[in-house]
Amino acid sequence: MGLTIGVDIGGTKIAAGVVDEEGTILETSKVPTPDTPEAVIDAIADAVRQASAEYQVEAVGIGAPGYVDDKRATVLFTPNLSWRHEPLKDKVEQRIDLPVVIENDANAAAWGEYKFGVGTGHEDVVCITIGTGLGGGTIIGGRLHRGRYGVASEFGHIRMVPDGLLCGCGNQGCWEQYASGRALLRYAQQRATATPERAETLLSLGDGTTEGIQGRHISEAARRGDPVAVDSFRELARWAGAGLADLASLFDPGAFIVGGGVSDEGELVLDPIRKSYRRWLVGSRWRPHAEVLAAQLGNKAGLVGVADLARQG
Amino acid sequence: MGLTIGVDIGGTKIAAGVVDEEGTILETSKVPTPDTPEAVIDAIADAVRQASAEYQVEAVGIGAPGYVDDKRATVLFTPNLSWRHEPLKDKVEQRIDLPVVIENDANAAAWGEYKFGVGTGHEDVVCITIGTGLGGGTIIGGRLHRGRYGVASEFGHIRMVPDGLLCGCGNQGCWEQYASGRALLRYAQQRATATPERAETLLSLGDGTTEGIQGRHISEAARRGDPVAVDSFRELARWAGAGLADLASLFDPGAFIVGGGVSDEGELVLDPIRKSYRRWLVGSRWRPHAEVLAAQLGNKAGLVGVADLARQG
Amino acid sequence: MGLTIGVDIGGTKIAAGVVDEEGTILETSKVPTPDTPEAVIDAIADAVRQASAEYQVEAVGIGAPGYVDDKRATVLFTPNLSWRHEPLKDKVEQRIDLPVVIENDANAAAWGEYKFGVGTGHEDVVCITIGTGLGGGTIIGGRLHRGRYGVASEFGHIRMVPDGLLCGCGNQGCWEQYASGRALLRYAQQRATATPERAETLLSLGDGTTEGIQGRHISEAARRGDPVAVDSFRELARWAGAGLADLASLFDPGAFIVGGGVSDEGELVLDPIRKSYRRWLVGSRWRPHAEVLAAQLGNKAGLVGVADLARQG
Amino acid sequence: MGLTIGVDIGGTKIAAGVVDEEGTILETSKVPTPDTPEAVIDAIADAVRQASAEYQVEAVGIGAPGYVDDKRATVLFTPNLSWRHEPLKDKVEQRIDLPVVIENDANAAAWGEYKFGVGTGHEDVVCITIGTGLGGGTIIGGRLHRGRYGVASEFGHIRMVPDGLLCGCGNQGCWEQYASGRALLRYAQQRATATPERAETLLSLGDGTTEGIQGRHISEAARRGDPVAVDSFRELARWAGAGLADLASLFDPGAFIVGGGVSDEGELVLDPIRKSYRRWLVGSRWRPHAEVLAAQLGNKAGLVGVADLARQG
Repeated sequence: MGLTIGVDIGGTKIAAGVVDEEGTILETSKVPTPDTPEAVIDAIADAVRQASAEYQVEAVGIGAPGYVDDKRATVLFTPNLSWRHEPLKDKVEQRIDLPVVIENDANAAAWGEYKFGVGTGHEDVVCITIGTGLGGGTIIGGRLHRGRYGVASEFGHIRMVPDGLLCGCGNQGCWEQYASGRALLRYAQQRATATPERAETLLSLGDGTTEGIQGRHISEAARRGDPVAVDSFRELARWAGAGLADLASLFDPGAFIVGGGVSDEGELVLDPIRKSYRRWLVGSRWRPHAEVLAAQLGNKAGLVGVADLARQG
Repeated sequence: MGLTIGVDIGGTKIAAGVVDEEGTILETSKVPTPDTPEAVIDAIADAVRQASAEYQVEAVGIGAPGYVDDKRATVLFTPNLSWRHEPLKDKVEQRIDLPVVIENDANAAAWGEYKFGVGTGHEDVVCITIGTGLGGGTIIGGRLHRGRYGVASEFGHIRMVPDGLLCGCGNQGCWEQYASGRALLRYAQQRATATPERAETLLSLGDGTTEGIQGRHISEAARRGDPVAVDSFRELARWAGAGLADLASLFDPGAFIVGGGVSDEGELVLDPIRKSYRRWLVGSRWRPHAEVLAAQLGNKAGLVGVADLARQG
Repeated sequence: MGLTIGVDIGGTKIAAGVVDEEGTILETSKVPTPDTPEAVIDAIADAVRQASAEYQVEAVGIGAPGYVDDKRATVLFTPNLSWRHEPLKDKVEQRIDLPVVIENDANAAAWGEYKFGVGTGHEDVVCITIGTGLGGGTIIGGRLHRGRYGVASEFGHIRMVPDGLLCGCGNQGCWEQYASGRALLRYAQQRATATPERAETLLSLGDGTTEGIQGRHISEAARRGDPVAVDSFRELARWAGAGLADLASLFDPGAFIVGGGVSDEGELVLDPIRKSYRRWLVGSRWRPHAEVLAAQLGNKAGLVGVADLARQG
Repeated sequence: MGLTIGVDIGGTKIAAGVVDEEGTILETSKVPTPDTPEAVIDAIADAVRQASAEYQVEAVGIGAPGYVDDKRATVLFTPNLSWRHEPLKDKVEQRIDLPVVIENDANAAAWGEYKFGVGTGHEDVVCITIGTGLGGGTIIGGRLHRGRYGVASEFGHIRMVPDGLLCGCGNQGCWEQYASGRALLRYAQQRATATPERAETLLSLGDGTTEGIQGRHISEAARRGDPVAVDSFRELARWAGAGLADLASLFDPGAFIVGGGVSDEGELVLDPIRKSYRRWLVGSRWRPHAEVLAAQLGNKAGLVGVADLARQG
């Protein structure tokens, strides 16, 4: 099989791309994510039609935020688009004349990094994506681990703190509440409120208030050595690394891949994550250690990954 | 392939059995576990020789407590026997003329329940064994999930409580400290000390002191409705169920199997575990639920499981 | 000194009463709490003028929600009325011709119970008020414990859970998030969502949805034995009692008094609070235990208490 | 009244001193702490007799580790000396002809610092002593706060972590397990095991093993910038400061005094404690902040304090 289309449904944009067997993107398009679920489906169909007019494509993969069922056909639940048991595969296939595969977007990104990114050469990989929230995907023995019902690797919602922070999922103490872009922002704002004299650089990058702090300010301030920004990244890393240690006890992968916006900061965040990971790794003296690698494909990982999953049928 | 031998190295006894393709045990023997690692190997060899004198066996599987490497040959680490990188397969094969496979004992028990016990008919199974400690094993797509280095499914040591109880593994807050026979005993003793008038039955079963409380007293007292004993089982179930909910987010199995001594109590403990599991299951309204089943094979699961793994080579 | 006026500024109503030396309320009036801080002051002045027209009163005590300074004159901070360093004593004294004393409302309630309620006869009392939130006051050696700056006994905001639930105060894991009317509601809703079949009575009292559950439904359902409602009270009691045990280590009072709306449920909640308190009391075998008593004065405690504090000048 | 004797019963030594009204020690003696409770009483009597032969003393104060009753006569419980309801005052008074006052040693140290040390000029002081364990004492309105039964200010055993570390007191998650010399050692050992390359200086000060690390190594290594040692002090400070913030909500003192061996490290530990304290102080923008001061009297605080308490009768 030759070319396929990968579609990535994001919170603000829908990206579609024509991808070849080596994972090279030949062409991409982007449109703003519409408000209604039906309009999203229309937008996907439009993007696919446009791409397939120019290229000979053989299948379509769609990465969706949320639970995707075991047949890779129905979106069971997505927090942001209010899809509930949405038969996405059928609806898109009715509009275009190509086989469609649906996959959870974090699974798709994991597959992309495994197949074409930093995971190449490994057979057992756990990928976490630290963006606004925290997602993940797992490759076991060279195959995407989907679970019995399609909803495996929902890493963001394992409980890190009993009776901890409320999560959008309804539970408390979810990992996502402690190791995500939102958590990073909370760490910085709480610290800047308590000790503003340690956050001068950070506060100067915004409007001077703690409410005005944004994620990019924290990154920039951390690079300049702002104590509150540096501490905030360390706090995030503390939780991210502890979670990786748990995942090592569970999945025992050959490599961890850390992606998402946070991984763009490189060693600023990867180095403390590795330290925390080693700090909490059980039996660390008696076992081989999985490497902790930075993702390579950036925000293309999902699109490329889901295009490849579609190729495999 | 016909008959194989399964060996289970326990803390107090080494059990060996001849097992056929249906998982039926034709004969078993038991000897006390010797003190030194070398004597353990001798005892295993003796048991195998004895069994193979009578039956035509084709392979030997050995279930060992601790980390077993990815080649299923070396025991990397076992807390109780002080084995460190012990080449168990080679040493046993030197003494007997049969191919040997080593497997972690909880993995072996999981495989036994999957293949011949309550897990029959499922392809994706997570098994937890609540004995003195807490162990586990995972079947994914009909295959035992061993991980890249052979040390997957070390469930007992995922962190349930940050800064929590010290664990023998050197970490803090491990699941095993909250959902195990030892934890159950701690719950009962702490409660009986604080409110002895709620533990009259429990205390009457031993020597009347909290220090004299034993695991079997708690079970018996709980069956008679002793408030402290019942609360102690509930507390254990609270932690066990919350952990299962995490495992559902990670592995998304079709069924959970709960084994070990604690599962012998049946619904007394299974029912509250199921409630706690549902309480913490993320997105429970939008996804199929894995069943939570009681193990069927009791303490034979490991022996039967590792004998079958040896059969498969 | 004879009669004084007590004023209680509540979230929805301002209550004023003429109180004699025995703590008997001779007359009360209530008006809805106005929206703006200035209008609140006017309403207080009106109520005082009206009462003092009829009775010979000698001083006015005002119980305010929030921090009150060490001179009992300025409200430093109140979450609901947006007062920040508000010179309440001066402003009210300008409108009426009577000496005014300001006191934190939970301190006032503690004093009321100590002087005229269930605390009579004790010299060292810790009072917690479990209403929508959690407040408290302390009597040490027969004197109200105000602290150096007037802000002692802010029990609701001691940290019970590191990295726990976000609190309106900006911190995480505050006791108020686990032992308050709001917490009770959360417990009930989370449990009813997870296991609706255990909440049939509870759900039937409202509109059938978990969102429709109200505090009074939980009380009523608990009295009828609804498992989710009973468990929710137990969970609240678990946290309330553990906090009392901490307060015993800190203050070592002769008695605890539990007031607020939750104490209206009587033994339904007091009994499990006592059990949890004993469960966590340090060195319980070697020390005398403070009693845990239900408040007697209901929502009059603050008014009566602050009137008496005004009497003492 | 003129001179009094202060006695400090430590884990390894009993110190006795003659103290004047300004808190000046005129003479001291030390003997090893005997093994049996009766021998301890003999040693105290000997030390008192010796001192009173030379000086005209009028009373004796004895600081004891453990709970002292409300009459300051009986030691209710002491973990290290196995005293249970020991009538210490009576037994010592039978041996010497002077009035005796017993006080908890941490209370005595708090009083010493309040009266003669860094607390001079304050009326409301909370003192914490971070030694092997964590103790404390409170001065409210210029008086030692003893509580109804004499056992107030047992700070070391408030619960900082639900389901946290086991404590010698039988509870879990006590503050002492996270902010004490023992905790510091645990932090250093856990970190040095996980990341030995960050603990080179620390390990070089002992025998090279993590087991060989001692408290003084951590201090020395931290001064030399050893990353693991510095991190270990930060971790201790994180917990100490968070606890002080809780104590501010409860007692609202004018000053905190931090004593014990850990305070000998000065700003190395005081500075991060202050940061953590401010980080967690509730409503920090709207209230005056208590200062956090280093103790001045070192290990003489208890002796001097209890001598003064004896003077007051």
